[in-house]
Amino acid sequence: MLHGPNLNLLGTREPTIYGTTSLAEIDQRLVTRGAELGLEVRCAQSNSEGEMVDLIQAAGSWAEALIINPAAYSHTSVAIRDAIAAVGIRAVEVHLSNPQAREEFRHVDLVAGVCWALVAGFGADGYFVALERVAAVSRPPSE
Amino acid sequence: MLHGPNLNLLGTREPTIYGTTSLAEIDQRLVTRGAELGLEVRCAQSNSEGEMVDLIQAAGSWAEALIINPAAYSHTSVAIRDAIAAVGIRAVEVHLSNPQAREEFRHVDLVAGVCWALVAGFGADGYFVALERVAAVSRPPSE
Amino acid sequence: MLHGPNLNLLGTREPTIYGTTSLAEIDQRLVTRGAELGLEVRCAQSNSEGEMVDLIQAAGSWAEALIINPAAYSHTSVAIRDAIAAVGIRAVEVHLSNPQAREEFRHVDLVAGVCWALVAGFGADGYFVALERVAAVSRPPSE
Amino acid sequence: MLHGPNLNLLGTREPTIYGTTSLAEIDQRLVTRGAELGLEVRCAQSNSEGEMVDLIQAAGSWAEALIINPAAYSHTSVAIRDAIAAVGIRAVEVHLSNPQAREEFRHVDLVAGVCWALVAGFGADGYFVALERVAAVSRPPSE
Amino acid sequence: MLHGPNLNLLGTREPTIYGTTSLAEIDQRLVTRGAELGLEVRCAQSNSEGEMVDLIQAAGSWAEALIINPAAYSHTSVAIRDAIAAVGIRAVEVHLSNPQAREEFRHVDLVAGVCWALVAGFGADGYFVALERVAAVSRPPSE
Amino acid sequence: MLHGPNLNLLGTREPTIYGTTSLAEIDQRLVTRGAELGLEVRCAQSNSEGEMVDLIQAAGSWAEALIINPAAYSHTSVAIRDAIAAVGIRAVEVHLSNPQAREEFRHVDLVAGVCWALVAGFGADGYFVALERVAAVSRPPSE
Amino acid sequence: MLHGPNLNLLGTREPTIYGTTSLAEIDQRLVTRGAELGLEVRCAQSNSEGEMVDLIQAAGSWAEALIINPAAYSHTSVAIRDAIAAVGIRAVEVHLSNPQAREEFRHVDLVAGVCWALVAGFGADGYFVALERVAAVSRPPSE
Amino acid sequence: MLHGPNLNLLGTREPTIYGTTSLAEIDQRLVTRGAELGLEVRCAQSNSEGEMVDLIQAAGSWAEALIINPAAYSHTSVAIRDAIAAVGIRAVEVHLSNPQAREEFRHVDLVAGVCWALVAGFGADGYFVALERVAAVSRPPSE
Amino acid sequence: MLHGPNLNLLGTREPTIYGTTSLAEIDQRLVTRGAELGLEVRCAQSNSEGEMVDLIQAAGSWAEALIINPAAYSHTSVAIRDAIAAVGIRAVEVHLSNPQAREEFRHVDLVAGVCWALVAGFGADGYFVALERVAAVSRPPSE
Amino acid sequence: MLHGPNLNLLGTREPTIYGTTSLAEIDQRLVTRGAELGLEVRCAQSNSEGEMVDLIQAAGSWAEALIINPAAYSHTSVAIRDAIAAVGIRAVEVHLSNPQAREEFRHVDLVAGVCWALVAGFGADGYFVALERVAAVSRPPSE
Amino acid sequence: MLHGPNLNLLGTREPTIYGTTSLAEIDQRLVTRGAELGLEVRCAQSNSEGEMVDLIQAAGSWAEALIINPAAYSHTSVAIRDAIAAVGIRAVEVHLSNPQAREEFRHVDLVAGVCWALVAGFGADGYFVALERVAAVSRPPSE
Amino acid sequence: MLHGPNLNLLGTREPTIYGTTSLAEIDQRLVTRGAELGLEVRCAQSNSEGEMVDLIQAAGSWAEALIINPAAYSHTSVAIRDAIAAVGIRAVEVHLSNPQAREEFRHVDLVAGVCWALVAGFGADGYFVALERVAAVSRPPSE
Repeated sequence: MLHGPNLNLLGTREPTIYGTTSLAEIDQRLVTRGAELGLEVRCAQSNSEGEMVDLIQAAGSWAEALIINPAAYSHTSVAIRDAIAAVGIRAVEVHLSNPQAREEFRHVDLVAGVCWALVAGFGADGYFVALERVAAVSRPPSE
Repeated sequence: MLHGPNLNLLGTREPTIYGTTSLAEIDQRLVTRGAELGLEVRCAQSNSEGEMVDLIQAAGSWAEALIINPAAYSHTSVAIRDAIAAVGIRAVEVHLSNPQAREEFRHVDLVAGVCWALVAGFGADGYFVALERVAAVSRPPSE
Repeated sequence: MLHGPNLNLLGTREPTIYGTTSLAEIDQRLVTRGAELGLEVRCAQSNSEGEMVDLIQAAGSWAEALIINPAAYSHTSVAIRDAIAAVGIRAVEVHLSNPQAREEFRHVDLVAGVCWALVAGFGADGYFVALERVAAVSRPPSE
Repeated sequence: MLHGPNLNLLGTREPTIYGTTSLAEIDQRLVTRGAELGLEVRCAQSNSEGEMVDLIQAAGSWAEALIINPAAYSHTSVAIRDAIAAVGIRAVEVHLSNPQAREEFRHVDLVAGVCWALVAGFGADGYFVALERVAAVSRPPSE
Repeated sequence: MLHGPNLNLLGTREPTIYGTTSLAEIDQRLVTRGAELGLEVRCAQSNSEGEMVDLIQAAGSWAEALIINPAAYSHTSVAIRDAIAAVGIRAVEVHLSNPQAREEFRHVDLVAGVCWALVAGFGADGYFVALERVAAVSRPPSE
Repeated sequence: MLHGPNLNLLGTREPTIYGTTSLAEIDQRLVTRGAELGLEVRCAQSNSEGEMVDLIQAAGSWAEALIINPAAYSHTSVAIRDAIAAVGIRAVEVHLSNPQAREEFRHVDLVAGVCWALVAGFGADGYFVALERVAAVSRPPSE
Repeated sequence: MLHGPNLNLLGTREPTIYGTTSLAEIDQRLVTRGAELGLEVRCAQSNSEGEMVDLIQAAGSWAEALIINPAAYSHTSVAIRDAIAAVGIRAVEVHLSNPQAREEFRHVDLVAGVCWALVAGFGADGYFVALERVAAVSRPPSE
Repeated sequence: MLHGPNLNLLGTREPTIYGTTSLAEIDQRLVTRGAELGLEVRCAQSNSEGEMVDLIQAAGSWAEALIINPAAYSHTSVAIRDAIAAVGIRAVEVHLSNPQAREEFRHVDLVAGVCWALVAGFGADGYFVALERVAAVSRPPSE
Repeated sequence: MLHGPNLNLLGTREPTIYGTTSLAEIDQRLVTRGAELGLEVRCAQSNSEGEMVDLIQAAGSWAEALIINPAAYSHTSVAIRDAIAAVGIRAVEVHLSNPQAREEFRHVDLVAGVCWALVAGFGADGYFVALERVAAVSRPPSE
Repeated sequence: MLHGPNLNLLGTREPTIYGTTSLAEIDQRLVTRGAELGLEVRCAQSNSEGEMVDLIQAAGSWAEALIINPAAYSHTSVAIRDAIAAVGIRAVEVHLSNPQAREEFRHVDLVAGVCWALVAGFGADGYFVALERVAAVSRPPSE
Repeated sequence: MLHGPNLNLLGTREPTIYGTTSLAEIDQRLVTRGAELGLEVRCAQSNSEGEMVDLIQAAGSWAEALIINPAAYSHTSVAIRDAIAAVGIRAVEVHLSNPQAREEFRHVDLVAGVCWALVAGFGADGYFVALERVAAVSRPPSE
Repeated sequence: MLHGPNLNLLGTREPTIYGTTSLAEIDQRLVTRGAELGLEVRCAQSNSEGEMVDLIQAAGSWAEALIINPAAYSHTSVAIRDAIAAVGIRAVEVHLSNPQAREEFRHVDLVAGVCWALVAGFGADGYFVALERVAAVSRPPSE
């Protein structure tokens, strides 16, 4: 579970829009939900493109899947795209809001092309959707 | 639940990619799942942009939300965009695969800008994700 | 008098913007005004690009002129453009609001290039302006 | 009533296309028609972008509405656009012919975005259409 | 044999350009020529993008090949492109005239990319060329 | 019959795609087929844009029509376009494969705009199609 | 000190945004502030691109520096750019608001490329900033 | 002979590049050279687009030809283009230097499209070249 | 006071252009000047986009305003733009030189759109200008 | 004197447009006129871009100047541009007609950027204009 | 020797493509080869754009040359470009594969414009090529 | 070893930039160096795109690899690209200088996409680099 730039402000800024739940609380609930689904969930946040590349590479050595909200880097980072492609991990891109309903420069998504799936607009619920989908495809008998 | 052009071929074409479940079976399961969630689900499919506009307008008179896979019309239809905006319905756009990983002309999405949320890449499971999110926001006490 | 997609919602949606007059009432008044001007007016509405092409072709066999509000299809339909050009009818394009004051993608108008004239921004009054101009050029002695 | 560059040649150049009526005669008829509608009409023509800005500002201090044919400046003048926006006047843009049926560089209209309405293709009759629409919205009881 | 929008006007409009042969006559001759080549030819025309998608899907269930003149939809329809790709049929795109010698917006062809071959500029003879080529590749011993 | 750059490799390179027939054999069959149709066919191939211009000019002094596969020069040569326009010859452009299904830079065709007709995707059979169409329009009584 | 089109409306239009200070008052304060800094300040305003060119040329014959707010002409005038370059004067471009936060067509600045410096967003204070910077670089001992 | 913006500075600015001859001297020599060729030459210069339109219209009522150096307005003025087209005069566009060897935005020339001929790069000699060519085509017996 | 990439080299590189004052000296003077204006000034420099985001977020928790020279990140960073918008701080963007007079790719400024004001071209003096403007709007009685 | 592709057809094709004078006659007259001006003129024509490069290189070893009509290669040849730049010769580009008044793709001129001057629209007289200008700058005492 | 993002994965990922040699081994061999050539080679790798800027600045204080593989940052980093330009070091850009043969967005290279030379496609051997070239130009007597 | 247009001028033009070594001397040294590496090297130069295609095809019949400096044709030739692809030869593109540091139109490279590797900026040494790399991959035991 990798959160990109400015997402550490969740819950403290613009609570009427983004809710009052902090990123730490969301991460805690994601770990809990993961455990219910039989998955170990590790969470990280970074404002740095390079550190996100480091974290993706690290995830590549043990994780089955990556849930990533690249935030602003969605529109400018070839390095994150290359990292996901290089480690060959199943990735789900999550956006809290719908970038297609925002400024023109947010309609370009350099990262999405190497992701398995994309969820946008559901707020923090999008992370849980992604987690459940990842669990569904990694559980042997189901689906 | 509105399926766009060529989605009626689901289950009969390219089963190794899209699975062997027909659109009718998916729709049946969606109605069932909706009932579990306390929602009445009505399903339609059309290959015609105009008929999709008709169906969106019709949905506007009774439905709380619209789950739509505009397929090819995502990239070319201002009329479907205008219909969703005109009826003022909460819409979730669903794509079976991830358009950002396909041809350049599929990176433009004229419909997404008036939708609440977007789900892409989970195959037919994306419809269920959308349905559950819609149920979550329409249930009074929860979330 | 040919109304394009979503115009059938006139009078029932966003009445503070578009007024409370329904499309049926507008059409009735257009028929009446046409009769005063010595013209037979026939009205149709369709949400379908193909049906609009059918209706333009049909008009080509008897009508002197076509007043058309292609709405969303103004920006995407080569087929409607070709239909107007093929039947060689004098066409006036009418828009309720001014598309140049809206989103970028509404600044392209594929249909206008084969029309005689264009009226935008006067609301439903635009239809009457177009009707009177058509009457003026079809009346032998006047102008 | 503000006529832009080269419109002073009306009636003397290319009479088979633009008719033999001079701009002075058109203006005279507009004043007369305005009087019938209970409106005082003042007319001006200029080949200069800056003088057109002066005239729009002047109109802003007394007129209820501005009918403007920016001609060539439609496609290149941000200053005229800003003048209309700054004085906050209700403006109708008129074109004698249909710019969408002419060269590519005439498809861009920088002025239209701040106008209430647009009339194109009716020749000099377009001015009368605009005048009548302006009268209609300024008359207290009617419409 | 699928004819797109406005092609039903063949023979009745602009006979000096397109000849006086109606679409019905052309279709009749194509059926006859097909029979000579040992092929069953079925013909349809539609002004509707959605109906063309329906017809392509229907053809997919029995026909060996599709000869299609998408006319105006060549330049705007992703749905027709997707239909041809989805049914996996061998398609030949035919144009009566040469779109490259017409307006800029006709130089884009969204459908051609999924077709086997393209014939343009031979008028109605193009259909016969396509039919003969299709026959040639479907006849077991020859070529 | 004018073949452009790299077509002299036909039959020796990538035989699984382009067949094992050499350009010389194709040319021989074209001469034979031309004779059957009552036409004298002369064939040439060049890798040089300038030499192709020379050959088009030479053809202009005796030939009724030009069948040309400009290959790579289709996308870059204004000189070949100008040569065809200057000699005023009826030209048919032939491509072995369908350029619209290849790289983006092959979607531009500078030569097609001055040609009468276009045939693409039929392999070497395209030359015979073109030859038969040219014969058809040059035969006085028929068609 | 050269003010471009529509700036003569300062103080009388939209006072909540631009303040109630008129351009004449600002100019008076600039002359006073200039005198304090040991500089003679002359002020002019014009709505005309050509007159602005005249004024820049005139300034070139005596002034050490030019403080210019080209307003709308920033985005469209090569003539003003050429005038500044031709007289070789040190120029500071001032904007009351920040054009980068407004419409797309205001992001192009043809004049800035020949200016020494740029100040935007400080309202009328921007003129004083520019004046003080100009004074600083023209005072022999300081800086 | 119509000189555009900033050309009045000729001879006083950058003499090493543009020479020390003033515009007045050039104009005097053009009048003299015109007289030798049997032509009456009238010269004007303006920094204003609108005044240039006025002068072109005035020339249209008596002159056989217009020699114009639109300078910066070459790249931005549709009004000057329209004026030349409206008066239907034979125009030669002259540039002192070669705009193609300067900044990108000088590669667009909106005026050239309605001119008979174009001369660039010869400095002030370009005016004499244009004058002699105009004389040549207006002299009845010669050339 | 936040300095972006490569600004730590100030005073040691290209002293004839940028002067011999080091960034540390400039920062010291800014702190002093801030104290005179009754403001606490804190300075930081980073070559890392992510660290700049961290620093902006930190500033958001105590500072009234942010003076930022994003240097190269002006043209590529959506993350810095989002950080400024997220913390809702009053920001002034400063550039030492004028980016509009440099390469094409420096004409795009992704950060400016969320800033209150912009100062460019005054060298290090631009920081002092920004500091004084910020002080002016934060001082209760003045302005 | 170097003539590009298709110019060898002069005098034999479209004589109503280009006159009945052949290229050989024009070249003969250019040699004669050159002799009058004290210059040795050598003429060549080629349809080949490569041969034109050869000829420019050859000219570089003896000629003072190059008068070149690159015709179609103006719009596509970097090689001819590089050849002129490499030999460092004073070049004048001549066009018989005005490319700015023709198709869009003729508005790009890759060769003009390395030429001293440009003459377009005077027909074959343009060569004589260029020759006289070249003579003027190469004559020691005059001009 | 500076390796950009994701290059630390060399030898462990996709060994069939990139070989089984790790980055550490390559670096060791580069140090050895440098010693043979009389050069001290220092190697670093970073996934962070900002850290790469730091490292380039550090190299600027002692190194004669920089061999850099900016990987993904080649296409998006103005900061790295500015760092190389600021320290004024001789730089060689190395790519393991050929970016021109990959996705469209890899055809833009913001860093290359400030490099002395570019080597792409030779895999890790490209580093040795660059090292030998750097040695060649830094050795006083040779070359 | 294939040298493109204008490279035959090496050593005689601009010796301060390109050195005084002629192309013949470079070729002689390449043959010698090739012999040392156990390779037969054949060299050719042409200013003609078509002849370069001929030479590439010829090389395809015997050579293991092609070292090509397409010079100006890098930016405009699809024919050379197609020739390299058609003969399926391992190609290395060499440029004496770095095209990315030159004009915008040199940033497009149509040939590079079908090459194995690219070397730019090392002057004539680039040919030797390419030769050694080719030798390395063709020698059975090594590397």
